[in-house]
Parts: sequence; C-alpha cells; structure tokens
Amino acid sequence: MKEMNVGVLGATGAVGQEMLKILAERDFPVKSLRPLASARSAGSTIRFQGEEVPIVEAREDAFSGLDLVLGAAENDIALRFAPHIREAGAVFVDNSSAFRLQEDVPLVIPEINPQDARQHKGIIANPNCTTIVTLVAVAALAKESPIETMVASSYQAVSGAGVAGMRELTEEIEAGLRGQAYAPKAFAYPIAYNVIPQIGPAQFMGYTSEEMKMQNEGRKILHLPEMKVSCTCVRVPVLRSHSVSVVLRTRERISVERARALIAAAPGCKLVDDIQNRIYPMPLDTSDQDLIFVGRIREDLTSDRGLNLWCCGDQIRKGAATNAVQIAELLL
Amino acid sequence: MKEMNVGVLGATGAVGQEMLKILAERDFPVKSLRPLASARSAGSTIRFQGEEVPIVEAREDAFSGLDLVLGAAENDIALRFAPHIREAGAVFVDNSSAFRLQEDVPLVIPEINPQDARQHKGIIANPNCTTIVTLVAVAALAKESPIETMVASSYQAVSGAGVAGMRELTEEIEAGLRGQAYAPKAFAYPIAYNVIPQIGPAQFMGYTSEEMKMQNEGRKILHLPEMKVSCTCVRVPVLRSHSVSVVLRTRERISVERARALIAAAPGCKLVDDIQNRIYPMPLDTSDQDLIFVGRIREDLTSDRGLNLWCCGDQIRKGAATNAVQIAELLL
Repeated sequence: MKEMNVGVLGATGAVGQEMLKILAERDFPVKSLRPLASARSAGSTIRFQGEEVPIVEAREDAFSGLDLVLGAAENDIALRFAPHIREAGAVFVDNSSAFRLQEDVPLVIPEINPQDARQHKGIIANPNCTTIVTLVAVAALAKESPIETMVASSYQAVSGAGVAGMRELTEEIEAGLRGQAYAPKAFAYPIAYNVIPQIGPAQFMGYTSEEMKMQNEGRKILHLPEMKVSCTCVRVPVLRSHSVSVVLRTRERISVERARALIAAAPGCKLVDDIQNRIYPMPLDTSDQDLIFVGRIREDLTSDRGLNLWCCGDQIRKGAATNAVQIAELLL
Repeated sequence: MKEMNVGVLGATGAVGQEMLKILAERDFPVKSLRPLASARSAGSTIRFQGEEVPIVEAREDAFSGLDLVLGAAENDIALRFAPHIREAGAVFVDNSSAFRLQEDVPLVIPEINPQDARQHKGIIANPNCTTIVTLVAVAALAKESPIETMVASSYQAVSGAGVAGMRELTEEIEAGLRGQAYAPKAFAYPIAYNVIPQIGPAQFMGYTSEEMKMQNEGRKILHLPEMKVSCTCVRVPVLRSHSVSVVLRTRERISVERARALIAAAPGCKLVDDIQNRIYPMPLDTSDQDLIFVGRIREDLTSDRGLNLWCCGDQIRKGAATNAVQIAELLL
C-alpha cells in the first residue's frame, strides 16, 4: 500500500497528539487523517500538517474507509472498538495493554522483532513504554547471548500518566511555592519532591501490573519464554522520559567492551557511556527524540555473567507514539 | 561516663545542625557543647537547648577538654583533625568516609553491630547514608540467613549534597517557573525534573565511590566479607529521605511472610507493606523521623532464594546524625 487513510483513536491525549506529530515528522504517507476522540472533543479541530482536521466522535460506525487505526486510548476503549475496526477492514496498531499478550496478536518493537508484525490478523500491539525503553537496549545484548534473568528498577516520568500527570506535577510544585495545599488526583500521593513505588494495580505475588509487563511482554518480544524478570516500577518527579536501572544475566558472559560495541551498533540505541567525564543518559537529554540512550555499562559484581546498564528514553515518543508509527511503516 | 563535653565538627552544615537537634531531642547528657566550624562561622553563635553557644574555629588546638567529637565534616577535615582529637583524649565519632574501611576503626550501626563499637581505639566511623538506610532493613533478614548477593538501585535526595543541594533544587525550580536560566553548582547537571545517575567519582570498574560503599561498608557492618553487591546510585529531585530498591539473595530461602515478620520485629525498622491498599514507604512520609520504612516485600522472580524490598529513610537523621548520636550513646 502506498498511501493510507489513517485514524487516530484517542487523538487528544498525550500519546495521540504525539502520534499526529510523528506521522507528520516521519512523512508517513497519510492519504486522509481521521482524529477520533470522545463526544466531548468531537466537533473541534486538531492541526495536522498545516490543516485543521475535524475531530470525529469515536463510535462503532466511525471507522469505515480507514486502512490503519493507531490506538492511543485505554483498554476498555480499545476492546470496545477493535471488532468494528476489523470489520471496517483497517489494521489496528494499539497502544493499550488489552491485546498485548493474546497469542494471535503480534507485540512488536520494530528494531527487535519486525518479522512478527507480518503474522498479524488485524491487530498489532504496541508494548508498554518502560518495556520498550528497556528492551531496545537489552535486545542488542540478547542477540549475542540469551537473557536468563533481569532485575530492573524504573524511574518513570509523570507523563506516563498522560497530560493530567504532567499538569499535576507542575500545579503541585506551584501550589507548594505559594504555600497552598494541593489534593493529588492523577496520582495517589503527592509526586512533587517525592517518589511513589507503585504504578498500576497489584497483580501477581505483590508485583504491580506495570512490573509484570517487563517480564510478560519481554518474553514475547525477545522470544525468550523462560526469561525471568524482577521489576520495581517507581514514579519520579520528572516530566518526560523514563529511566531504568537494569542488571541482567546472559547465558554466556558478555564483556563490558563487547556490550558497548553491541549497543553502539544497535538500531534505536545511542551509547552514552563515559563516567570519567560525567557522561551518561539523563531524562532531560533524552526528551523529544527517539533514541534510547544507554550508559553506566558495568560488570555485575554479583554474577560472572552479568551486566549493569542504565537506559533512558522518551516514553511518549519511542515508548509509545514513534514505536506505533514505526509498526505502521512495516505495513506499507 | 555520666555526662560528656561534646564537640561537633562542622556544626553549621546540614548534618552538623541535625546532630545538635538530635543531641537535644534524645536528651544526650551534654555537660558542655562546643560547635566547631571554619573561621568564617567562628564568632557567631548557634542555638542549643535554648542557649546561644559561640561557634569556635576548628583548629588543631580546639579540642582540649572534650570527651566526644561528632564529626560532620568532609574527609580532608576529618583526616586533618583526627590526630588532635585523639591527643585531646576525646572519642571521634566521624561521619566522613575517611576512616570507615580502616581495620582498627569500627564501622557501626547500633541496631546491627553495637558490639563493634567497644573495640574502638579513639575513632568510630558512621557509615554512608544510603548504606545505613538499606542495611537497617537487610540486617534483619541477614540474621535469619546470610546475604550472598544484593542488587540495589537508589533514589537519593538532594540533601545528600547538604544545604547547598536543597537550595539548588528549590532555586532551580523557581528559576524555571520564572523562565530564567539557572547554572547548576551543587550538581553537575540540572536536578529539577531530572535524575542524575552518578553520585561520587568513578572508583572501581565503572562503579562510583557511593556505589562501592554499599558493598565495602556492608561487608564490614554485617560481618559478611564475601557478600557481593551491585549498586546503582541515582540522585532524584526529592529534598529529603533516600529510597532504595533492593533485590537480595540469601543462603537459605526466607519466605515473604517470614521476611515481613522479621522486619516488623527489627529495631529501627517499620513495616509499611500493603500494596493492595497503596501502602508503601515514600520519602515524604519518612522525612524528619528515625525509622527506616520497609515495604514492597516480594519473592524475587529471578531466584528461588531471593527477596525484593523497597526501603526509605531520612538520610540526614538515621542516615547520618541520629546514627552518630546513637553510637555516642553506646559510649556512655
């Protein structure tokens, strides 16, 4: 297909808006654009490539004529509209977690498993943002030797909770400076000057849903069904870009020098690793671009086949919108 | 000894000021107080138990008559004055890292190894703040079964860099809201809305000095010379209280239930662990008090003898000042 009629479901959210931006940035061959959102937004317009495009209410009959729907909505919305998107004959590239672990739905990071996208039956799932940020780096090492175990602790930006998360951090800080009380809404507790060690509900043996995604989605994307992951996901007062501290054990030892060479050569990664000169990935440096920065590469002192890494990437772009558009590019 | 003539070296810094507060709070039997600081502060006074006490310039001859000196200064100051403190006949309880790994200097967390303090030859070292926050929890488990390995990622408050660190975060945020540029001084990079994955200079195989303290000091305090630790230390935009994500492997398996019981019964710890009800340790809740909060206790999914923990504690109090005063109490 040379050009596509593209729908964006959830076009007014943080990820939806970024998808529009990235479709334009990457010159995706958009024949027509249909931004879909709730009834509240329908009727207003959204700017795309210099034109004001009317927002259409997301309804069961709103998908006819589309070739591609990029999904940037919550699970319930994705589940509700998926059959109608399929009926309309469009491919649904969905950023929700609703379909990610379904056997007949490919879960794709284009730098890692683009071939999986070919098996799709109408839906291709976009992985969790923290999982993408971590795996783009880890996959480069897994190609050399399979990952047996991974321990990860995340430092996740408030924009993981969308526009509301970003607004809340800013408003909370401003209220604090005025000496005013502020009641958190997007997060369960104040996030300004705090960190919150829970993202998502408790799901399995005390791990949260967000923490289990790293193992469950990671196994599927890397084709390593035995990989074991212990993850701790933590919200930090950063506006944009997730960071992850990773310790992994490979089947065969990979030296630090070799790991650096693999990361430097890996698509989607940038090696940013020179502690002597204070050079390492940081969220402020990785925001608003698509590469995953990887640094602090060290031998794991607890294992003879282990490596420590520090990964950092813009989770709204590569962790969500860019990855979805890259998947769509595989369909062209 | 029933009452002591007490000197505080570095009395005007964040830790020094907290030491004065805690001496008063804990009713330490202070016969006389001598706050010692640089020539710049000498001559002014500092308030202690309702009285204005003159600050004395820290000089080689400034320690006579003292029984105890609490050290809250940098390594170079501690190294310079230690011989003179000894000459004056005072015991030096030092918070710098200068003496911590010296064989004839006990390194003490009173909840863990109070007996070591008795072997002192004039100097007792106070451990690193992140090490204290982590070990108070970990020691409770190590008593049940020795720790073989530990993977830790820290979320360290700006006050770890003293009063200047706290001022910098606040000023940087305020400058940002006014749209003004701000040149970082206390940290190498902006810390507002950012995280910085380096604390201390690079020291060993790409690990920083702060990261190696967890292994080197941990081995000495826990009397586990073989314990292996892989640590990643990260500065986060929190004013006070360090948090640490820990995955440890014990020689024999400890169940989650048993771990919870051990933490609940451990001196200096508070079990704060009920993810279903969104209850876990957070820096805002642990600031300005002495307990280490421990939660998110889970089986490590990468090992059959592993546990995940999330620890959080006020690193200026229990991580520095309170621990030092507790050591001094062992000398009474």
